[in-house]
Amino acid sequence: MCESSAFLLGKNNELTRVMENVVDVTPTNGKVYLTDLLGEEKILDGYIKEIKLIDHKIILAQD
Amino acid sequence: MCESSAFLLGKNNELTRVMENVVDVTPTNGKVYLTDLLGEEKILDGYIKEIKLIDHKIILAQD
Repeated sequence: MCESSAFLLGKNNELTRVMENVVDVTPTNGKVYLTDLLGEEKILDGYIKEIKLIDHKIILAQD
Repeated sequence: MCESSAFLLGKNNELTRVMENVVDVTPTNGKVYLTDLLGEEKILDGYIKEIKLIDHKIILAQD
């Protein structure tokens, strides 16, 4: 499977996991909509900073 | 493996494949930097519209 975890990048470059088993990511108007394998949805303020598929990491950031 | 293909969403909602075996995606300042398994890099004007990990699709769009 190719699901990834979503992390929020903090001010000291630390990564905080905000969702596991993410399968769908849609950034819109300063928010990022995340959906996991079970169809649960989470909406965060922020934007996509980087996606590292080999590491299974979706890295989000906030200004 | 979890690499995906990157597609550009056209004006008639058609998808044009722009890169295969993408492993890293970094959107910055109106451009999207794509890197594939072999380390090749491609830079496109646009933004991330949606990422569908189960479908292995990274969908980019341009305004």
